[in-house]
Amino acid sequence: MTKRYSVILGNLGNTRDRFMGGGYKTARATRDMIAEAASIKGLSGLELVGTWDVTRENYREVGQVLRDHGLACVSIIPDIFARPAWGKGALVSRDPAIRKACVDEIRMNAEIAQALGCPLLNIWPGQDGYDYPLQDDYLAARGWLQESLAKAASEFPALKFALEYKLKEPRTHSYLARVSDTMLVIHDLGLDNVGVCIDTGHALMAYENLGEAAVLAGKRLFHMHFNDNFRYWDDDMIVGSVHAVEHIELLYWLDRVQYAGWYSMDQYPYREDGRGAIEESLRWLQGFQALVTQHRAAMDALLREGNAVKTSAFLRSILLPS
Amino acid sequence: MTKRYSVILGNLGNTRDRFMGGGYKTARATRDMIAEAASIKGLSGLELVGTWDVTRENYREVGQVLRDHGLACVSIIPDIFARPAWGKGALVSRDPAIRKACVDEIRMNAEIAQALGCPLLNIWPGQDGYDYPLQDDYLAARGWLQESLAKAASEFPALKFALEYKLKEPRTHSYLARVSDTMLVIHDLGLDNVGVCIDTGHALMAYENLGEAAVLAGKRLFHMHFNDNFRYWDDDMIVGSVHAVEHIELLYWLDRVQYAGWYSMDQYPYREDGRGAIEESLRWLQGFQALVTQHRAAMDALLREGNAVKTSAFLRSILLPS
Amino acid sequence: MTKRYSVILGNLGNTRDRFMGGGYKTARATRDMIAEAASIKGLSGLELVGTWDVTRENYREVGQVLRDHGLACVSIIPDIFARPAWGKGALVSRDPAIRKACVDEIRMNAEIAQALGCPLLNIWPGQDGYDYPLQDDYLAARGWLQESLAKAASEFPALKFALEYKLKEPRTHSYLARVSDTMLVIHDLGLDNVGVCIDTGHALMAYENLGEAAVLAGKRLFHMHFNDNFRYWDDDMIVGSVHAVEHIELLYWLDRVQYAGWYSMDQYPYREDGRGAIEESLRWLQGFQALVTQHRAAMDALLREGNAVKTSAFLRSILLPS
Amino acid sequence: MTKRYSVILGNLGNTRDRFMGGGYKTARATRDMIAEAASIKGLSGLELVGTWDVTRENYREVGQVLRDHGLACVSIIPDIFARPAWGKGALVSRDPAIRKACVDEIRMNAEIAQALGCPLLNIWPGQDGYDYPLQDDYLAARGWLQESLAKAASEFPALKFALEYKLKEPRTHSYLARVSDTMLVIHDLGLDNVGVCIDTGHALMAYENLGEAAVLAGKRLFHMHFNDNFRYWDDDMIVGSVHAVEHIELLYWLDRVQYAGWYSMDQYPYREDGRGAIEESLRWLQGFQALVTQHRAAMDALLREGNAVKTSAFLRSILLPS
Repeated sequence: MTKRYSVILGNLGNTRDRFMGGGYKTARATRDMIAEAASIKGLSGLELVGTWDVTRENYREVGQVLRDHGLACVSIIPDIFARPAWGKGALVSRDPAIRKACVDEIRMNAEIAQALGCPLLNIWPGQDGYDYPLQDDYLAARGWLQESLAKAASEFPALKFALEYKLKEPRTHSYLARVSDTMLVIHDLGLDNVGVCIDTGHALMAYENLGEAAVLAGKRLFHMHFNDNFRYWDDDMIVGSVHAVEHIELLYWLDRVQYAGWYSMDQYPYREDGRGAIEESLRWLQGFQALVTQHRAAMDALLREGNAVKTSAFLRSILLPS
Repeated sequence: MTKRYSVILGNLGNTRDRFMGGGYKTARATRDMIAEAASIKGLSGLELVGTWDVTRENYREVGQVLRDHGLACVSIIPDIFARPAWGKGALVSRDPAIRKACVDEIRMNAEIAQALGCPLLNIWPGQDGYDYPLQDDYLAARGWLQESLAKAASEFPALKFALEYKLKEPRTHSYLARVSDTMLVIHDLGLDNVGVCIDTGHALMAYENLGEAAVLAGKRLFHMHFNDNFRYWDDDMIVGSVHAVEHIELLYWLDRVQYAGWYSMDQYPYREDGRGAIEESLRWLQGFQALVTQHRAAMDALLREGNAVKTSAFLRSILLPS
Repeated sequence: MTKRYSVILGNLGNTRDRFMGGGYKTARATRDMIAEAASIKGLSGLELVGTWDVTRENYREVGQVLRDHGLACVSIIPDIFARPAWGKGALVSRDPAIRKACVDEIRMNAEIAQALGCPLLNIWPGQDGYDYPLQDDYLAARGWLQESLAKAASEFPALKFALEYKLKEPRTHSYLARVSDTMLVIHDLGLDNVGVCIDTGHALMAYENLGEAAVLAGKRLFHMHFNDNFRYWDDDMIVGSVHAVEHIELLYWLDRVQYAGWYSMDQYPYREDGRGAIEESLRWLQGFQALVTQHRAAMDALLREGNAVKTSAFLRSILLPS
Repeated sequence: MTKRYSVILGNLGNTRDRFMGGGYKTARATRDMIAEAASIKGLSGLELVGTWDVTRENYREVGQVLRDHGLACVSIIPDIFARPAWGKGALVSRDPAIRKACVDEIRMNAEIAQALGCPLLNIWPGQDGYDYPLQDDYLAARGWLQESLAKAASEFPALKFALEYKLKEPRTHSYLARVSDTMLVIHDLGLDNVGVCIDTGHALMAYENLGEAAVLAGKRLFHMHFNDNFRYWDDDMIVGSVHAVEHIELLYWLDRVQYAGWYSMDQYPYREDGRGAIEESLRWLQGFQALVTQHRAAMDALLREGNAVKTSAFLRSILLPS
């Protein structure tokens, strides 16, 4: 099956951190970033962030620019993490008015998605966690999480909702922290249109094996974000810049669990040329994919046997051909 | 509700690591360790490890010694991790004969438990994981895990089976790695007598918040193991030697989720006097418990408010009274 | 010896992260933040960040406001990390013009410090590191680091230069990453006025023991920043909110190595009331200090003996008095 | 320059951990392990551990077996970590008699080394650390460390002493924890024959970049141990099984700092065929070395430029040639 590759549009824009408030780069027009994305060979879709990229006001225009460039809108990521109002929690805010506003925000993005022919909302509840021990009522919070998600997702049964988990940041602890946490929430929701987005960096940061995370998500794996890191933090680096083997294994398993969604880049090229960083990730993924496609039978056999020495010899043979 | 405290008997014996194969201490007779445990004021139960402490041959005698000392047998921990036969997997071994032998081993321990009036088996599948990327077939392994556990637990509906998860060690990755992973397995099993054992050190090592882990387990929280560490590894230290606040929070939540099981010590006092190390953990827990019991209403109010500054002032007032 | 407590002024202002570019709070006037700091009982000094708090244009006015409030200027932290020009390195930029501009920036701050009667520059070379493997020439970079620091510090022999190390962030790897790395640089510099600033959160993140870090710095320990975290990241939380024992041990060792500098708060109260969060840290430190002052002889004896069980009993007796 | 490859002999023997006290495999005769090592093409040296492999009684015989197989004795690793006597510290024991015994043990191994024509002692002070906060007197311990090492190394000026640092295990904190800690000790010792052994797994566990660690050691880099891990623990896996890029970068820097010592395997193939695991590591290293040798000029240029996108494209071109 041919793989489809995409990118979160903002990866091509300015990058900030808590020290460099004005950013390492400069702001860019959405239209220019879309054009740049379109110039990357092999990239055929975009993810748009609410507020940042797409609003109730500009969505028709953005949709037209996408069509002009032949790019699909792969997902919309509602802004439930980047406004001061969400700072102490959005889906699980103690304030019912904020929880309602958050569901309304998701609803608005869902309507835009439908208008744009976009099949999926990527829900990243970044502010929905806690920072200090003995600060939060985990029972109440989990109740609100369930309730808010149920409201949002049940209204749009034709739209997929992919829940993107992350161990931490910006909170020191997130409620959707790991793939299994997220699957528990999904089981309790009982809605067919809610699934998981695995961000490979988030999984690595949680000491998850990428391939096993895909297996745990199974048919509920709705979306994939790709980047790399040093395992302790969401460094959001170029794919393959640190890890090779685990990406190869992941691509193998994405096929075994019949993942049919997009392979989307999600990085933070703070100091790098954005286009260059995204293109590199895409090329690494394509290269890993070619290895998986070519050696699938050998990999099947290795997993049946479970012999680490043979696994090593195989990986050496494909990465260091003499 | 009065709390009941216990210890894993082997904590009072010799301690080994991979470098000190002969151990930092010397081997001791089971009878002597039981007598020593009985001398710790406030301790009223023991956990016994199969093979190490209790066998088909000696269980009647061990039971008698326990009764002589007025100690309850709180749990039996089947040896499914300490024989070369289990080295490459026990419940999930590729070899059906080993999987069967592992279920048989659990069955034998279940029968001993029933004979001793022990209500719970603590299942720690330490060898059931993998070490290398691209080594294991996660789908097959998870199938075997489910199958083996179902066989073992369905035969003894009156006995509780507590699954003790651990992120890693002795494998670099375990199949029951986190509380949520374990709850997913329990949901799929559909057996009322299967639940979770939270080992606090395992939870800390997985970057879990202890109290939130208890909430995630909920009514399936069957057993608790206590120790402390530096968050990166299962250092198995004296409770309270590193963390105070998170233990206080945990004890608060154990009551909120109506945990009625034992509070059991599980340490590795490699170089410390075993009795002293266990007694210290017990005294810390009792001290933390007294704070929770006294300040429960204040803690309820703090969680409703979610103000970290107020939480800090409260904790300061109880730990550093001026 | 009476301890002197201070805070980095910006802790009382707006807080940002990479997602919340506009900040969780709102911008505040320097004058208002100074007044607020002065209202915290027991706080008698401030650290000012170049550009953010103090400039060539406003330093006389800022100095006057400090005097009006009876606050000392404890340190100035030159901005060598928050402008796009420094984004790919400041002291170790590949571009000699940027390295020169960085030394010039430090020089300007040194002159302001002297004009304000401030005895110390706190140098945090946050951008001086690297992100990717095979990206940087470590030999060249270390040469430039040495050269730039030598230029800056040798011109102002009466001013102390405290080098603040940090394992990572905003780069994935910093050149001044650990206390020992920093001491190696200091040894090579051979300048009496260059020493170390230990930020407790940076030390915890590097798996350093706080007390041992103080011993490694010894007489070169020029400055201290206090905050707390979960050991994996620079969470910049309220002191004591996670760790108690290690702060107690640190305060003991600060006296043993005859540290005579300021005890300065350095936090990021993203979502908390800034004044409240700083005051809490100060109160925890004062509480820990009272314990150390009272029990110094007992602590001396414990360290002579090295018995972890006795250490535990002692800590329990002071933190959980029954 | 031709690289010389070796292995620690025990890698081919039985493997234990704290749960599997009897080992995952079975004990083997030293003679058989030497013969097996000799059968690995490209391996020409061995490291021997005192007590385990070589003693005052058997060293002549072991030396003869080595010569029969054409293998060099690359280093001797004195047993200062595997006897109960060393359990609470060896070089830094509180007991002067134990410190003396430890220095005597090193002396005996030094004499054996000289008799065998072995140029280097690899000193791994695994027990020289501490476990609990507020347990140890860091000033006293560092004094003893310096004193014991000075005594041992000054007697044998013709023998190299390589200090092998490790962040932790078997203690929760080691005194020689990082490359910089170790360099500080070496500077203070002032002995030309004392240097560093970098164990790549230990460096990864300390969040060190392998190449930068080599630069920090510089001319004092006396010895290298190779293995791989998941960065959080000393998993002692096959080289290349997790990380590729950082090994390539390390080999590049070993040449730049003119490292002329052995490339020695140090693994713990708990469940793997020992010979197979060692041979795999050697082949990965040879493969990485071939890439470095071929592309040295390109790598020089990349480091001069510091452009992560170009680094990525280069690595992709050599690891994923299309």
